Amino acid sequence: MPTYTAPVKDLQFVLHDLLKVSEQDIEGYSELDPEFTGAVLEEAGKVSSEVLAPLNVVGDAEGCVLENGVVRTPKGFKEAFEQMKEGGWTALDAAEDIGGQNLPYVMYTAVNETFVTANMAFNMYQGLTHGAYSAILEHGSDIQKAMYLPKLATCEWTGTMNLTEPHCGTDLGLMRTKAVPQDDGTFKISGQKIFISAGDHDMADNIIHLVLAKIPGGPEGIKGVSLFIVPKILHDENGALGAANGVSCGKIEEKMGIHGNSTCVMNYDEAEGYLIGEEHKGMRAMFVMMNEARMGVGLQGYAQAEAAYQNAVIYANDRLQGRAVTGDENPDGPADPLIVHPDIRRNLMDQKSFVEGARALTFWGSSLIDRANKNNDEDADGLISLLTPVIKGFQTDKGFEFAVAAQQVYGGHGYIEEWGMSQFARDARIAMIYEGANGVQALDLVGRKLAQDGGKHVMAFFEMIKSFIKDNEGNDALKADFLDPLKSASKDLQAAGMYFMQNGMKNPNNALAGSYDFMHMMGHVCFGLMWARMAKAAMEALENGATDTAFYETKIATGKYYMARQLPATKMHLARINTGAETVMALKAANF
Amino acid sequence: MPTYTAPVKDLQFVLHDLLKVSEQDIEGYSELDPEFTGAVLEEAGKVSSEVLAPLNVVGDAEGCVLENGVVRTPKGFKEAFEQMKEGGWTALDAAEDIGGQNLPYVMYTAVNETFVTANMAFNMYQGLTHGAYSAILEHGSDIQKAMYLPKLATCEWTGTMNLTEPHCGTDLGLMRTKAVPQDDGTFKISGQKIFISAGDHDMADNIIHLVLAKIPGGPEGIKGVSLFIVPKILHDENGALGAANGVSCGKIEEKMGIHGNSTCVMNYDEAEGYLIGEEHKGMRAMFVMMNEARMGVGLQGYAQAEAAYQNAVIYANDRLQGRAVTGDENPDGPADPLIVHPDIRRNLMDQKSFVEGARALTFWGSSLIDRANKNNDEDADGLISLLTPVIKGFQTDKGFEFAVAAQQVYGGHGYIEEWGMSQFARDARIAMIYEGANGVQALDLVGRKLAQDGGKHVMAFFEMIKSFIKDNEGNDALKADFLDPLKSASKDLQAAGMYFMQNGMKNPNNALAGSYDFMHMMGHVCFGLMWARMAKAAMEALENGATDTAFYETKIATGKYYMARQLPATKMHLARINTGAETVMALKAANF
Repeated sequence: MPTYTAPVKDLQFVLHDLLKVSEQDIEGYSELDPEFTGAVLEEAGKVSSEVLAPLNVVGDAEGCVLENGVVRTPKGFKEAFEQMKEGGWTALDAAEDIGGQNLPYVMYTAVNETFVTANMAFNMYQGLTHGAYSAILEHGSDIQKAMYLPKLATCEWTGTMNLTEPHCGTDLGLMRTKAVPQDDGTFKISGQKIFISAGDHDMADNIIHLVLAKIPGGPEGIKGVSLFIVPKILHDENGALGAANGVSCGKIEEKMGIHGNSTCVMNYDEAEGYLIGEEHKGMRAMFVMMNEARMGVGLQGYAQAEAAYQNAVIYANDRLQGRAVTGDENPDGPADPLIVHPDIRRNLMDQKSFVEGARALTFWGSSLIDRANKNNDEDADGLISLLTPVIKGFQTDKGFEFAVAAQQVYGGHGYIEEWGMSQFARDARIAMIYEGANGVQALDLVGRKLAQDGGKHVMAFFEMIKSFIKDNEGNDALKADFLDPLKSASKDLQAAGMYFMQNGMKNPNNALAGSYDFMHMMGHVCFGLMWARMAKAAMEALENGATDTAFYETKIATGKYYMARQLPATKMHLARINTGAETVMALKAANF
Repeated sequence: MPTYTAPVKDLQFVLHDLLKVSEQDIEGYSELDPEFTGAVLEEAGKVSSEVLAPLNVVGDAEGCVLENGVVRTPKGFKEAFEQMKEGGWTALDAAEDIGGQNLPYVMYTAVNETFVTANMAFNMYQGLTHGAYSAILEHGSDIQKAMYLPKLATCEWTGTMNLTEPHCGTDLGLMRTKAVPQDDGTFKISGQKIFISAGDHDMADNIIHLVLAKIPGGPEGIKGVSLFIVPKILHDENGALGAANGVSCGKIEEKMGIHGNSTCVMNYDEAEGYLIGEEHKGMRAMFVMMNEARMGVGLQGYAQAEAAYQNAVIYANDRLQGRAVTGDENPDGPADPLIVHPDIRRNLMDQKSFVEGARALTFWGSSLIDRANKNNDEDADGLISLLTPVIKGFQTDKGFEFAVAAQQVYGGHGYIEEWGMSQFARDARIAMIYEGANGVQALDLVGRKLAQDGGKHVMAFFEMIKSFIKDNEGNDALKADFLDPLKSASKDLQAAGMYFMQNGMKNPNNALAGSYDFMHMMGHVCFGLMWARMAKAAMEALENGATDTAFYETKIATGKYYMARQLPATKMHLARINTGAETVMALKAANF
């Protein structure tokens, strides 16, 4: 059975050596000293390793079952969920007066990484609840906030997102679910929603569905969509539960993975619902939830690669097969461990350098969210808005790729469910799809985010890289291995942007045909920036007399690997982008 | 439920326009005129679409079951297998006097593509039997040939390959299974083999296991391995079945995919076995089977991508979502079909250009095998020996990648088992692992095949490309879109080979650390050559007045896409290779 150990040292490195969180001028950050965050992460890691990780394979094998209208989660999930609630792990960033710990989002992210890595399907029950919490926090009325926030923060009640319908996912303007206004100000919601993660289960007293629906007579398409709160069980103003609402789980989907999470078809039959925010402005509130979810999914991507990587390293050290070409390394054994072989190394270094780059980008992104929210910093807000599709799209594509690569280290054993490596790959697969398939992320990036606010944010991004390179030009230790490749990759990215500007005017397809490549290029450039910064931080730690030299030297070596072996991908992406839409759009639909 | 239609026109294009099989001076090829091959392929396509494809999802959902020592295949498999036998589909390339059709291997390959695409797990029962047939044909005694070949050709009895043991897969020298010689010239085989595809089942009267084992007192390691025939049921010299042999299925593995095939743990307990070929020379005979299996697995790789692609195209044409940015294409409908979107096009073109390139390379490879075997052509033998790891490694990596990409076209529906797209990805995954994990293929290519016969074959390969480019330099239609990119990619590949030569001497890890990238580069160059040739063939067909202009124009356009959008990957691989082993091998094992 696979195991998981929270990489507390690595998490601490990103928080303190890289981001220097306790020195940031963001509300609540000054309290994030290494002792405090270390203690929290150690404790979270313990829950992750001891409670959540062992349930991961159980969840996969058992799945969720719908019986007589009741959804049963896998054995042990309920007890573990209680432990999460009791430990206060569900409300880290909620305000203290509603049962939370009032910690910054960056800390929520760091803790969440350990949970998601240990058991992705399990953690979705809490993750979606957090999304519902945030949407109501930002767009709900005072009464709604008072009613729902404390219960969602503590996961006494859980939350869901209801967007997709059988005939529409990305194009929500086609939605058919109706919300008919009632005299008492409530609405009657009717329709079918599909792919509802954590849609029904047995781990909370009530479930608060956030449902997109159309009020009859409103504008056509996406402009006529409103957002509603639809509780599974109706309740009075004190939260005391009453009758069942007109909502039920029609079916649990059979999926490729995340079997531990109940993915439900939800049927709404004149269910009572309460409008959030204004009529027909539902997408605005839903986007709060979606942007948060996209960050969370980007984390899922690398988290599954991390889980798979940890186990691949153990296997590569244990499994004896063949001999090192440069001389036996285990002369007394029948063969050398797999890890002596260069191609196994290449594979493991790919995984390691990806996961650590992704962690840095995700934590940095979370700190930008804190800065945007707590300091009302519009530049930070613009930057994270630009980076969100990259974090979601690039990290989930690569996360799946490297979970698959880790599975490969096991040879035939990787294909057998018993070893658990297949689950990491199968679970990671969904992250490329939900919360906007990665092609939609690329479209969002190239079709919307690049030009947002007159292109201000992407220019600031390039400026930031340029400044970093300029500020460190005299640093010989960084120059050839980090700054030069970063400069080159950043130039490639700018050239691609330039190509879009010059050719997208003539034909927007010239930009859109290159959007996916651009998303990947930008991911590489972000990772290149993260690795250059991490290398610098590691060098500084060594200069300042850090005792754990192996740890910091490993960071630098891993960064060198990324710059040398991964970053050159930008050249390929640029070459593709520069061919424009012609070959992409050449065929008639009938000739595929 | 997914569907499958055999792409007979495309198969014919490769056989006749590209390879011009009926004009080749290879025994049996002159009979392969378009009418004949067309009729065979139409018929095979019918069996594939109507019999095998509908059983694909059944096999996945039901899997194989071991009950009271008996292995039961999924519902309908037995009847379908009978149909395959009765139709003579199992013995296409076997000699007529042993029940075969005496067709060339290239024709076996073309027919096999349709079977494997329709139902990979099902076709493995026959594919492994074919491998056992080939090993006995080449290395068996006359008595063994007379006994087993007719029954294997017709699949009255099926075959298996038994290599892997719990503690060793790639490194077979560690093997523990023993073969103790008996006075009557037979051996008693004892030990455990794992991952035995089609190891036991209910579709044949007997199963002929080819088993690697060590005769006590023989040389250490791989040099002491011999190959044995071990029938499931003992038989007399007329093939009449007698008592059960000492071999049994201990367990069926739970796998990520190919559930329709019984992957067995096989226990040998003093089972009676008969030596094939010489003592301690077992690997030689096993390699016949393994090389054939590697070609077959390379075919599985693109076959699953083809199956997934066909369905993705249907979905992309059916599913209405969003509007084309260049103006509505389905103005009367609520939205445009997915296929209008450039990023969906990019994805489908990636898949299409891969599958068609892979088919061309695989069929060409099969014709090289025919030329080597039937004409005793050593150059052809050397070339296919060089290409086999590329066909296996590159095509299965990319086949999985593009099956996953096709799944992505479906959005959330791609993750739900009901739509069948998950199965294509899960089934395709094994092809990267078995018959030598792809890292081992890369090692075989760089560590052995490049230098084989003094590097003669790789030089011939480069020479072939050079000649093609030179011979067609005056062809303006080919020049910029095909010849120039091919030349550039081929130069990249040569530069990588040069890097290995210059730096592998100092430290072999400099070559091995780049082996995986080299395998991919070489795959791209092979595909580039295939596409340049296919484009030329299509242009000639158009010049010669072919009436189906859309078909040939589509070929050219698809080729242009490959050259523009896929071939630039060689630059990235070369950049990686040129960084050598330093960053790959930098860490101590303890620091991963």
